Amino acid sequence: MRNVEQLQTELREHLHSLERSGVVGLSATFQPAEWAAIVPRLDPDELLTLFEWLPDDDAATVLATLDPHTAADVLQIIGPVQAAAALDEMPEDDAADVLDALSDEQANALLTAIPAAEADELRDLGQFDPDTAGGIMSPGFIAMSPSLHADQAISALRKIAAERQPITYTYILDDSGRLLGVLSLHALVLAAPDKPVTDLMVQDVVRVRADTEATVAAQLLRTHRLLSLPVVSDDDRLLGLITPDDLANLALEEAIEDIERLGGSQPLETSYRSAPITLLVRRRLGWLMVLFLAEMYTSTVLKHYDGDIGRLPLLSIFIPLLTGVGGNVGSQTVGTLIRSMAIGEVRLRDIRWVVFKEFGTAALMGLGMAVIAFGRAEWLGVGHDLALVVALSIVIICAWSATVAAVLPLVLRALHIDPALVSAPLITTLVDGTGLIIYFTIAEFIVLR
Amino acid sequence: MRNVEQLQTELREHLHSLERSGVVGLSATFQPAEWAAIVPRLDPDELLTLFEWLPDDDAATVLATLDPHTAADVLQIIGPVQAAAALDEMPEDDAADVLDALSDEQANALLTAIPAAEADELRDLGQFDPDTAGGIMSPGFIAMSPSLHADQAISALRKIAAERQPITYTYILDDSGRLLGVLSLHALVLAAPDKPVTDLMVQDVVRVRADTEATVAAQLLRTHRLLSLPVVSDDDRLLGLITPDDLANLALEEAIEDIERLGGSQPLETSYRSAPITLLVRRRLGWLMVLFLAEMYTSTVLKHYDGDIGRLPLLSIFIPLLTGVGGNVGSQTVGTLIRSMAIGEVRLRDIRWVVFKEFGTAALMGLGMAVIAFGRAEWLGVGHDLALVVALSIVIICAWSATVAAVLPLVLRALHIDPALVSAPLITTLVDGTGLIIYFTIAEFIVLR
Repeated sequence: MRNVEQLQTELREHLHSLERSGVVGLSATFQPAEWAAIVPRLDPDELLTLFEWLPDDDAATVLATLDPHTAADVLQIIGPVQAAAALDEMPEDDAADVLDALSDEQANALLTAIPAAEADELRDLGQFDPDTAGGIMSPGFIAMSPSLHADQAISALRKIAAERQPITYTYILDDSGRLLGVLSLHALVLAAPDKPVTDLMVQDVVRVRADTEATVAAQLLRTHRLLSLPVVSDDDRLLGLITPDDLANLALEEAIEDIERLGGSQPLETSYRSAPITLLVRRRLGWLMVLFLAEMYTSTVLKHYDGDIGRLPLLSIFIPLLTGVGGNVGSQTVGTLIRSMAIGEVRLRDIRWVVFKEFGTAALMGLGMAVIAFGRAEWLGVGHDLALVVALSIVIICAWSATVAAVLPLVLRALHIDPALVSAPLITTLVDGTGLIIYFTIAEFIVLR
Repeated sequence: MRNVEQLQTELREHLHSLERSGVVGLSATFQPAEWAAIVPRLDPDELLTLFEWLPDDDAATVLATLDPHTAADVLQIIGPVQAAAALDEMPEDDAADVLDALSDEQANALLTAIPAAEADELRDLGQFDPDTAGGIMSPGFIAMSPSLHADQAISALRKIAAERQPITYTYILDDSGRLLGVLSLHALVLAAPDKPVTDLMVQDVVRVRADTEATVAAQLLRTHRLLSLPVVSDDDRLLGLITPDDLANLALEEAIEDIERLGGSQPLETSYRSAPITLLVRRRLGWLMVLFLAEMYTSTVLKHYDGDIGRLPLLSIFIPLLTGVGGNVGSQTVGTLIRSMAIGEVRLRDIRWVVFKEFGTAALMGLGMAVIAFGRAEWLGVGHDLALVVALSIVIICAWSATVAAVLPLVLRALHIDPALVSAPLITTLVDGTGLIIYFTIAEFIVLR
């Protein structure tokens, strides 16, 4: 366990490494947020040391910067008093995400320790599903009455504490909080002082209801390059805003979940460091068992051909090579397709040209590998006929795997199932059994007549 | 091929589907950017129809919203005159990205067709590597002299056309363009009119040199929740800004490349729709060959044991099941680790607890599968001894695969090699041969004595 001085040395090393890579002026201005780069690597004792030493508002900045699951782990380690203080200082949307990562019991215990108004706001935020616009929005915004003039609006803004985040937009709401329009600070500054804000505001603002999927909101923000997207209730009352930083966090989180799913595991949704083995087993065993039971089919196939293997045991030495090639070719096809579906390039109606392209690519690569495999089989001295069987099988298995791997993600997507489920492991499993049938069928024609 | 009316119907359907999912007010205000959702699915003829019909500035908006490789494909289809017009209207950073996705020849042809000043700016931007801060920055910013007072600064801003993007920050530069500080519009509006801007600006702004890696800049923007990060030359002259929308594009692009790499393929870097089979082969064959040559090792292993298989052909029917299980368990471990390394949670020094955790998880899951496999082997009637061999092999292969899959990404990262290279296919290949050795070694002790 290291003391505060050693941790500060590690932070300094991190800042220096950033400066070496081209960042200027970092050590002079920022520090609290940069602690977040170090925190995930600390032991519980070191975390305790660090957070006892950090001022409350710096602690809140660090926690807001961390991924919510890691932040939740930290809150449990630093104890309820300091945790409540930090939670109170954090931006509401981040605090709500962290509470969401705690158990209901732990979250409620913390909420009772912070001021009631703040706790109520966090409880309200917590009611939105984290995958919706309401779940990723931040509840803070600046609102004004439609009756003001430009100069009155500017005076009103002057009264707002200067420490707030830069004000980019002001929202014009009616008496019941319904969204009438948006006013950019830019338009306000450039306007004649006596111009009514209703003349300066933009009406019919694009906005999303709180139950809109977060990914739809994110896509909208990105496509239209919005600096801020209003989130409204069903009766059009303004609830909060989604800004590009919420979007970047979402993109990162989704990429991470996709990577886990492609590996054949459910998203962990907690920090790996603190995840016990039993949790890892729970997240992985279901999918692994599905694959395992599907893979058992290969034993049935081979049992069917065990007479052939008895006559020519050398047949079996190419089994892993053939199943391996099928899986690898299929994984490549799946990787390309999931990417193309992610950017909206390919849909079910494109299935014909996709299959044509993947079939052609795989058949060409299969020919290349078949030539090498033929040479290798000859070199192993298994006989010309078996070498030919192996070579032919490779070409056909490649084309077949690529076809299966091209069709499956498109069909799943059309059925509204996440195509990232079609991980490399699934394709490998699906094409193993069928690949063996191809191999033994060819063998029966050529070497086992 | 559809005509403009049919394409408009498709756009309306897209807007309606967004409205059904909770977006309000979209059809009333935006349309050009939303065409970008339809464009990747259009045939070349349909693209030509659409872009002949779209006004130049709308065409530019659509192109700027598309992924650069798709936009480059569109430019080639719509022909040089319209392409040059659109390029001229696009934001410079997007235009530079699109030029980068074209061949040098095509890019130069287009650059000669647009106004010289604009072309020079694009050529300058094109000199930065797209993976650096200079490559993702936008060259537009608002700059002022340090000699102004607040009221003069506001008048100066009024003179800037009202159509510009909302102004959030103004940069204070000295005579040679060096960055002295940053002034928020917010601070300016709230200040007394005679206050010098040098009193209002923030000095020692965090900034990055143009050659900083784009991911480092993105991380900085995200961690510190900046609305804008200045990019400077080696002598501290302001070159451009990175904003959160650049960051979101980068995150998306990186996630997509990771998905392709995890599938065992080099990033395609062009649109899939227009990629010929020969390009797909070039991107995939290298890595596939490496895996194929490595997988050949399994034939050598099995050749070594072909006497055993001759004595007991039933041994071979479990080969695909055992190699499959090893690959699947290894893929899960890799998925979890790549995720944890992406959020900075795990480094080489954590290797001991990582291996302990993955070994334990895999051994537990292996026990579960071993029980099922034992039952299955008994049911296939292969004899108690062979059933026992299969069950034992599963447990040991699981633990071994998880260990290999835990060590490899950590070591690669420490060697500064992208751990996403450790795709499921690589792990499968690596553990296939060793898994077979485990299986036959156990078999020789138990059934082949």
